[in-house]
Amino acid sequence: MSTPSPTEVTLVRIYLTETEKNLAHLLKYLHEDSQLRGVTVLRGISGFGKSGKLHTTHLLDLSFDLPVIVEFFDTPDKISYILTQINQFVAPDHIVHWTAYLSE
Amino acid sequence: MSTPSPTEVTLVRIYLTETEKNLAHLLKYLHEDSQLRGVTVLRGISGFGKSGKLHTTHLLDLSFDLPVIVEFFDTPDKISYILTQINQFVAPDHIVHWTAYLSE
Amino acid sequence: MSTPSPTEVTLVRIYLTETEKNLAHLLKYLHEDSQLRGVTVLRGISGFGKSGKLHTTHLLDLSFDLPVIVEFFDTPDKISYILTQINQFVAPDHIVHWTAYLSE
Repeated sequence: MSTPSPTEVTLVRIYLTETEKNLAHLLKYLHEDSQLRGVTVLRGISGFGKSGKLHTTHLLDLSFDLPVIVEFFDTPDKISYILTQINQFVAPDHIVHWTAYLSE
Repeated sequence: MSTPSPTEVTLVRIYLTETEKNLAHLLKYLHEDSQLRGVTVLRGISGFGKSGKLHTTHLLDLSFDLPVIVEFFDTPDKISYILTQINQFVAPDHIVHWTAYLSE
Repeated sequence: MSTPSPTEVTLVRIYLTETEKNLAHLLKYLHEDSQLRGVTVLRGISGFGKSGKLHTTHLLDLSFDLPVIVEFFDTPDKISYILTQINQFVAPDHIVHWTAYLSE
């Protein structure tokens, strides 16, 4: 049967930068509407995107527009629905996902 | 034969917050007893868990109880054993793992 | 047919520390020569490698030689080529990769 095992989850990572307008929109959606069990936001110390422009930081994290990764996981069905919602305001090539397993 | 390829590893990510008591326990176990080849601890700048309560930071990382991710990888057999140990003091739905490959 | 789906990517994570000489070499290669669509560099707050020596930080991120993770993804073919290049200056057991999917 094709029902996923109860311990299978889909893990999602979304790559943005601090000043992108859709970051606030994304976090609001995830926190208020997504019903996710948890979300973690990570800030990189350096990075570059399609423009080739470096976004970097030095001591004390005072730079601006650093890379931000938004990460979460949940059941495959719930994530599939959430991705259709997020695709409406985040470029699809900034979103990756894969299958992982809970330690149960 | 079911022996994994020598380059196959299991990658683990454990999601906690800075003030959870089991974080110190987990790091002590990983550092002193697990025989792992390496562990990385990452701190998020924002996040929320089941409670829906936001854990967030602003400039200079002065906030408290931020999300923390503990990440490590090793052979599937070693990770399988380590997860049985960690499951005794970390909630299983805070631990995800998947198969990855070394670049050999 | 074995052609990968257009949305399949290989995600790579490389584990180094801030003072390793090959970190600068790696970032220069990725930024100038790799033609990657994006790279993110994350700094851990603690970690240890084969030596068992802890690399850790406290308030305000003033410590030295913290763990650094370099992360990127692209098509399987491009990543396969890039890994052959990176293997020339980074130890293979510091590089993990797995298959993920774009949200398209």
